[in-house]
Amino acid sequence: MKSIAAIHNSYGKPAEVLKAETVETPEPQKGEALVKLVRAVINPSDLGMIGGTYGRLRPLPAIAGREGIGEVVALGPDTEGPAVGSIVRLPPEPGAWNQFQTAKADGLLVVPSGLSPDMCAMAFINPPTALCILNQFADLKEGDWVIQNGAGSALGYFLIQMCKARGIKTVNMLRNAKAKEAELKAIGADIIVDEAEFDAKEIKKQTGGKLLLGLNQIGGESVSNMIKAMGDSATIVTIGGMVGDPIRFPTRFLIFNDLRLRGFWWDKFQNTKPEETKKIYAEIFGMIENGTLKAPVDSVFPMEKIADAVKRASENSRTGKVMIEF
Amino acid sequence: MKSIAAIHNSYGKPAEVLKAETVETPEPQKGEALVKLVRAVINPSDLGMIGGTYGRLRPLPAIAGREGIGEVVALGPDTEGPAVGSIVRLPPEPGAWNQFQTAKADGLLVVPSGLSPDMCAMAFINPPTALCILNQFADLKEGDWVIQNGAGSALGYFLIQMCKARGIKTVNMLRNAKAKEAELKAIGADIIVDEAEFDAKEIKKQTGGKLLLGLNQIGGESVSNMIKAMGDSATIVTIGGMVGDPIRFPTRFLIFNDLRLRGFWWDKFQNTKPEETKKIYAEIFGMIENGTLKAPVDSVFPMEKIADAVKRASENSRTGKVMIEF
Repeated sequence: MKSIAAIHNSYGKPAEVLKAETVETPEPQKGEALVKLVRAVINPSDLGMIGGTYGRLRPLPAIAGREGIGEVVALGPDTEGPAVGSIVRLPPEPGAWNQFQTAKADGLLVVPSGLSPDMCAMAFINPPTALCILNQFADLKEGDWVIQNGAGSALGYFLIQMCKARGIKTVNMLRNAKAKEAELKAIGADIIVDEAEFDAKEIKKQTGGKLLLGLNQIGGESVSNMIKAMGDSATIVTIGGMVGDPIRFPTRFLIFNDLRLRGFWWDKFQNTKPEETKKIYAEIFGMIENGTLKAPVDSVFPMEKIADAVKRASENSRTGKVMIEF
Repeated sequence: MKSIAAIHNSYGKPAEVLKAETVETPEPQKGEALVKLVRAVINPSDLGMIGGTYGRLRPLPAIAGREGIGEVVALGPDTEGPAVGSIVRLPPEPGAWNQFQTAKADGLLVVPSGLSPDMCAMAFINPPTALCILNQFADLKEGDWVIQNGAGSALGYFLIQMCKARGIKTVNMLRNAKAKEAELKAIGADIIVDEAEFDAKEIKKQTGGKLLLGLNQIGGESVSNMIKAMGDSATIVTIGGMVGDPIRFPTRFLIFNDLRLRGFWWDKFQNTKPEETKKIYAEIFGMIENGTLKAPVDSVFPMEKIADAVKRASENSRTGKVMIEF
């Protein structure tokens, strides 16, 4: 049987190097399950992995993609595992954007039934990243403040929603803030500010020194501005950095304000801490079920149109995640 | 009775604004001791406080200086405190560069007798800074590595000596490394490298990923280079930053290497943690007594020549601390 996988033979512009290739559908062996793609997500980090700029690259030729859900359609001989028909996390390795793949049956993470397939498909990277940043870098109390740039991203939405649920207030920096303001207000954002109009002194005043955690996805002047608004002993966690502009090393803030600069990499966390990861996913599905987490979908492409899908995922005009379906 | 204090009426170039002014020698009141300056130290942070660039400035007119030792020459009526003749820490506030000052008698820190006056005079800022950086930011084991820039400073010497005593190896970055190489080797430095010839890949290789703590006194390209040499989950602690050149925000290192950027400010620590501070000073005097800590003195000036003293303290050619005596 033949099926389609999204494969690249070199690192480069995703819409140019990524192809929908016809491959032999694998047979599940003993201990394995055959998983059929139901819905996969295109994240900025996928584009970085295809482009060759990410921290860990796949050996070529590579199947792209890391996040989504699939259905167990067969089990190998004498194999125990999730029943045929179960919805599971798509195995992120060797590559999630694959119509059919086999995986160790007893390692599959079963997704609770009755939840939105779109939300479940995007449950495995951004929500746990937001949750870990909130839980691991600061001891926040109700009424404390969190700041983020890139607030219009899926990660930005999830961070706002998690803060809202805990009574923590948020300052949200983004480009073209006007266009997104109503939407961000609606999900619980407190302050929404355009990157170009950011006034660190004003934000510091409005947050009364209680701005104790920052999420930086942008770098450059954006993080430089963020630094100046933080309260004493605040931590800024970097998980991305699209802008390469040099900034002044924040000597004064490190010394006199006890500013702390850290980074977080979910890939590494989940690969090294499997037990904690399980608990985190259980918490995430709980937040999908109780309605805390919601994020918009921009568009859904069939696997055959993978080049169009990654092109759309890199456009500024998209209004949510770009998804891939069978 | 008249005596001399080093006073500035404005913030500016220390050799220009700082004057040896004649003042009325105070009388100790009940509960106070009169302390006579024995030896005081000129630190870079003093020049910053006089210059107006430090994190905390004294209201004007200000007596300058924060570090040194003095002798108790009188106690106020009905006052208990260190016996007349005791050597004590010069009260850092309102200003240490003062031939005579009164201070709360029961708050004075007595310096153990029989130790070098020069070493005791410089025991109160740089040694505790080096000790706190070693103890509070990383869990270092024998054979691990520490890196620092500005390694030719007194702080640099103390850090090398403390590391040496613990079996921790050091990489030492400095300008004009050739000139200081023999001296740094003699006190136990392992690798000595000129700032201009620093090769992060080579240092990373030589330290085998065990470069887990950095001390940054310089900023700019120097700290940018340091960042690239660090092992995973290493911490760089900034306590100064003479160079204002912008650097690239170290996104990749924060995320993929779990680099941690922190700062440390001894002033704040000692003002907020008096009990821990006492223990730290006891440990420092132990290290002076057992010969672990030694640092060169460049020159000693009488109080009358304070303008010459601060001028000398800012010259690149100095070979150790510039001291002030009565």
